[in-house]
Amino acid sequence: MHRYRSHTCAALRKPDVGATVRLSGWVHRVRDHGGVLFIDLRDHYGITQVVADPDSPAFKLAEAVRGEWVIRIDGVVKARTEDTVNKNMPTGEIELYAQEIEVLSAAKELPLPVFGEPDYPEDVRLKYRFLDLRRETLHKNIVKRTQIISAMRSGMGEAGFAEYTTPILTASSPEGARDFLVPSRIHQGKFFALPQAPQQYKQLLMVAGFDRYFQIAPCFRDEDPRADRLPGEFYQLDVEMSFVTQEDVWQTMEPMMTRVFEQFAEGKPVTKEWPRIPYDVAIRKYGSDKPDLRNPIVMESVTEHFAGSGFKVFANMIASNPKVEVWAIPAKTGGSRAFCDRMNAWAQSQGQPGLGYIFWRQEGAVLEGAGPLAKNIGEERTEAIRNQLGLDEGDACFFVAGEPSKFYKFAGEARNRAADELNLIDRDRYEFCWIVDFPFYEWNEDEKKVDFAHNPFSMPQGGLDALNSEDPLTIKAYQYDAVCNGFEIASGSIRNQSPELMVKAFELVGLSKADVEERFGGMYRAFQYGAPPHGGCAFGIDRIVMLLVGAKNLREISLFPMNQQAQDLLMNAPSEATPTQLRELALRVVPQKKD
Amino acid sequence: MHRYRSHTCAALRKPDVGATVRLSGWVHRVRDHGGVLFIDLRDHYGITQVVADPDSPAFKLAEAVRGEWVIRIDGVVKARTEDTVNKNMPTGEIELYAQEIEVLSAAKELPLPVFGEPDYPEDVRLKYRFLDLRRETLHKNIVKRTQIISAMRSGMGEAGFAEYTTPILTASSPEGARDFLVPSRIHQGKFFALPQAPQQYKQLLMVAGFDRYFQIAPCFRDEDPRADRLPGEFYQLDVEMSFVTQEDVWQTMEPMMTRVFEQFAEGKPVTKEWPRIPYDVAIRKYGSDKPDLRNPIVMESVTEHFAGSGFKVFANMIASNPKVEVWAIPAKTGGSRAFCDRMNAWAQSQGQPGLGYIFWRQEGAVLEGAGPLAKNIGEERTEAIRNQLGLDEGDACFFVAGEPSKFYKFAGEARNRAADELNLIDRDRYEFCWIVDFPFYEWNEDEKKVDFAHNPFSMPQGGLDALNSEDPLTIKAYQYDAVCNGFEIASGSIRNQSPELMVKAFELVGLSKADVEERFGGMYRAFQYGAPPHGGCAFGIDRIVMLLVGAKNLREISLFPMNQQAQDLLMNAPSEATPTQLRELALRVVPQKKD
Repeated sequence: MHRYRSHTCAALRKPDVGATVRLSGWVHRVRDHGGVLFIDLRDHYGITQVVADPDSPAFKLAEAVRGEWVIRIDGVVKARTEDTVNKNMPTGEIELYAQEIEVLSAAKELPLPVFGEPDYPEDVRLKYRFLDLRRETLHKNIVKRTQIISAMRSGMGEAGFAEYTTPILTASSPEGARDFLVPSRIHQGKFFALPQAPQQYKQLLMVAGFDRYFQIAPCFRDEDPRADRLPGEFYQLDVEMSFVTQEDVWQTMEPMMTRVFEQFAEGKPVTKEWPRIPYDVAIRKYGSDKPDLRNPIVMESVTEHFAGSGFKVFANMIASNPKVEVWAIPAKTGGSRAFCDRMNAWAQSQGQPGLGYIFWRQEGAVLEGAGPLAKNIGEERTEAIRNQLGLDEGDACFFVAGEPSKFYKFAGEARNRAADELNLIDRDRYEFCWIVDFPFYEWNEDEKKVDFAHNPFSMPQGGLDALNSEDPLTIKAYQYDAVCNGFEIASGSIRNQSPELMVKAFELVGLSKADVEERFGGMYRAFQYGAPPHGGCAFGIDRIVMLLVGAKNLREISLFPMNQQAQDLLMNAPSEATPTQLRELALRVVPQKKD
Repeated sequence: MHRYRSHTCAALRKPDVGATVRLSGWVHRVRDHGGVLFIDLRDHYGITQVVADPDSPAFKLAEAVRGEWVIRIDGVVKARTEDTVNKNMPTGEIELYAQEIEVLSAAKELPLPVFGEPDYPEDVRLKYRFLDLRRETLHKNIVKRTQIISAMRSGMGEAGFAEYTTPILTASSPEGARDFLVPSRIHQGKFFALPQAPQQYKQLLMVAGFDRYFQIAPCFRDEDPRADRLPGEFYQLDVEMSFVTQEDVWQTMEPMMTRVFEQFAEGKPVTKEWPRIPYDVAIRKYGSDKPDLRNPIVMESVTEHFAGSGFKVFANMIASNPKVEVWAIPAKTGGSRAFCDRMNAWAQSQGQPGLGYIFWRQEGAVLEGAGPLAKNIGEERTEAIRNQLGLDEGDACFFVAGEPSKFYKFAGEARNRAADELNLIDRDRYEFCWIVDFPFYEWNEDEKKVDFAHNPFSMPQGGLDALNSEDPLTIKAYQYDAVCNGFEIASGSIRNQSPELMVKAFELVGLSKADVEERFGGMYRAFQYGAPPHGGCAFGIDRIVMLLVGAKNLREISLFPMNQQAQDLLMNAPSEATPTQLRELALRVVPQKKD
């Protein structure tokens, strides 16, 4: 027999009854039922119930073992009696009668219980992560994470992509977030940087002729810790393709990602054909470029119904500024004064003056629009609004007015708030869309200049002509995001692979050709020597895993995460360098006062 | 039709004749045959020959294009005439008659030719790596590399392993090579380190109960550049398993790796059952712990035949020191004085006093052992040596004498040299073996103390008993290497997961329990809370790829390698940090004189 096990702790079934077997695993818990000991023995695969009765030669050791000891047990498989069968366990029809127990590794008193996984302070969980990871939920999440990533790899392979590994010790990137630096010992005083993303390398791979690249790529950004971002490193499914339009990228990634979600969604519906929503439309309909499409509320402009109306606040705003609009946030089933007042109060808590509303109620035979706004604009306009939005008795509608660029975010939040409160969101589904046609530039109010809105390497729609002749702020990019349930899960674009176009695009944000050469030399140089049209995207793996396992915290889907203070409590990092290390790197630590 | 291509440049065949198609790719070369232009159009997948005759509307642009321009071509597929069919090209039966050409990206004069891939200085190749990577050999090598790694991943998945990603920003490891450090901005004056290998994390994963781990793991060692090692990062197939003996590790990895090699060996034979050779035996038979088993020479001790013989040099050495042995290096077909003298001269060039030999020739009816040594020891002993080694007419044998620990390396080199010179090595095969039972400790002559011979985390054979009672230098470890064609391709061990045993093992090299706690706190702590028996190995991916593509230089199988001075010439790394970056990290560069 094998030194440690003939079966895993998930393997034994009724047909094994009578067999002499060997199991190894962790003592999940021990119970004493009238002198007979029951040990739940756990390994990676499952749990088997072990019985040690007082006649067994193993009884004495069975009495000694404690939770999380690692033991080997030899014994005979017996069928459970009908009333003790556990249908919730795959091994629930049998139990193992212990004949011999060997302690492979004892455990000291546990700083963190595994069985039952009670709540525990995060710092203890991170310091004793090896115990934390034994807990059922976290263990399952991590296993699922590996399966999701493996499914992505298979999917990309089936779609004709190969995985290319790009360097981790590379050059500092002058755009984007803050780099982690790595001092060079051989070139003292100089530094490598860890890649924020393999953006330049993947584009260089296309220029090198590799056609279809992907990578489960480690990315590094030295940002201040935030609740929704782990300090340090994160992973993305990074993708790039040559000789493609943006439609090709969508057609490639959409079915692949849909299949991955279907595989792990445990029966929840997944969008098969992802709608493509222009950025401008998403803002108008959902007040967000990452709309949660499970939320059925679609906003509409109702400006015409307020123009010249008796509700002077809105009417005057509309009259005095052609950019002013009034948007309606229809809220089915929200038609009570209590709910409308609650929304109004919430809006005020958000720093808004309030949130105008109308709600509809049956008054005898009459369907009445109620609330001060309805009164001000009168019956006809109220009815026109109700008709436009398809609302009925028991529904409500909220209104925001002003310049959309200033209020759309709040409107989007109000849309979410209303749907949340009214339980309009079907949470058991995965709703995807592509947000497309992002603006190429945006106005930087602080510096009073035009800036890149997103990726400076994206291709502007209309090409050189557009850059030469159009208002930069109206130019769109071949730039897109994938959104699932209100979270951005991917971002991508068709790249600008023309050196002239690149120089022109940077000129408009005030950077010279020399700047481009200095900052993006590798890529700019490459584009001079035959660069294919190319594009791609990057999917955020952590977010996808969180969506699929239903986790709210990144630490619930990460193996050895740092804490919120960017420390690894398990391995004790970061830590002080030795004088020798610093000398070899020609560095001195200069203590500084924190602001 | 698609914006860029209806087919790849490898797709068109005879049945496509008559079709109107669209291709995009790089101009591989242009030839002018009596006014008709032939363009070889190349993409990732292959090459298609394009014809532009003077009547074609595309002719004018065809005249303008140059090597490595990226173009789109619309045209009609025509069959080649029988005498122009190219059987060496998959698309060799057709050619494309160009009707329209669009230049997608022009190329400046090339600093590095792609077509024909002539030799070029390495620094130019690295600076223009995006051109270098278009060259046929390198392009193929990189594609094969991705396929080999993908096959490893599949193989590990089929063997029940999941891929777990371990942190890249972690703690400095006090043993082993030099770490790359990463200054922490949030904890000024402290540093992360990049992992030299995920050794501690993978063991922690076993303690956390994950049973079967693998990872295509990036590893980082800040070592001085060497010909056989790239500066910076490298990849290994890292593996760990719980509840296993070393036999389980071998039984798991051997068939998986054999299949991977068979898949890419292009018909060359691959060892199916890898012999397990104890370290001591490997040293005695091959003079190396990474023997090339394609070399048929097996050394043997022939001490008895020289003891008390007329060859006084050896006889006296044997008589005066019981550790002295004489080893024979039998060299079939080496039986000429010229060859034996050449070997002797080579030995002297290696700093040896010489290399004694006997060779056998037919003198009339007599098979005679020739050379001074044979004369000295006489016919009977010469014949006994010949019989022991199974040598015959036309064969030779070389002899080294002394303490084996001092001469075995040279003997191993002589074995290789003889086989090389005599062409005894069948180079078209992959010969694997496991070298097992490595010594746990070794004698550190400089510090006059016992040291770990290899991995301090390995399990000593005999456990605590052996550590308590045996001469440390005689203790073996459950430690093994995999060797292919004379290269170590993997190393591994069963780990020491007992805290007491760990403390004792470190005691013997002069380290206290406190040292263990300080240096390996994460793992030492974990072993207190129920650690399963576990073990694993790590395969070197670069070496495996080199063996399978037949490359001699690491840069021939790496995507964006640094140069020998540890610089990335393409991205210009390492480079100076900005004053802001240094201030944020609380670091000052202190210029130092190099020794």
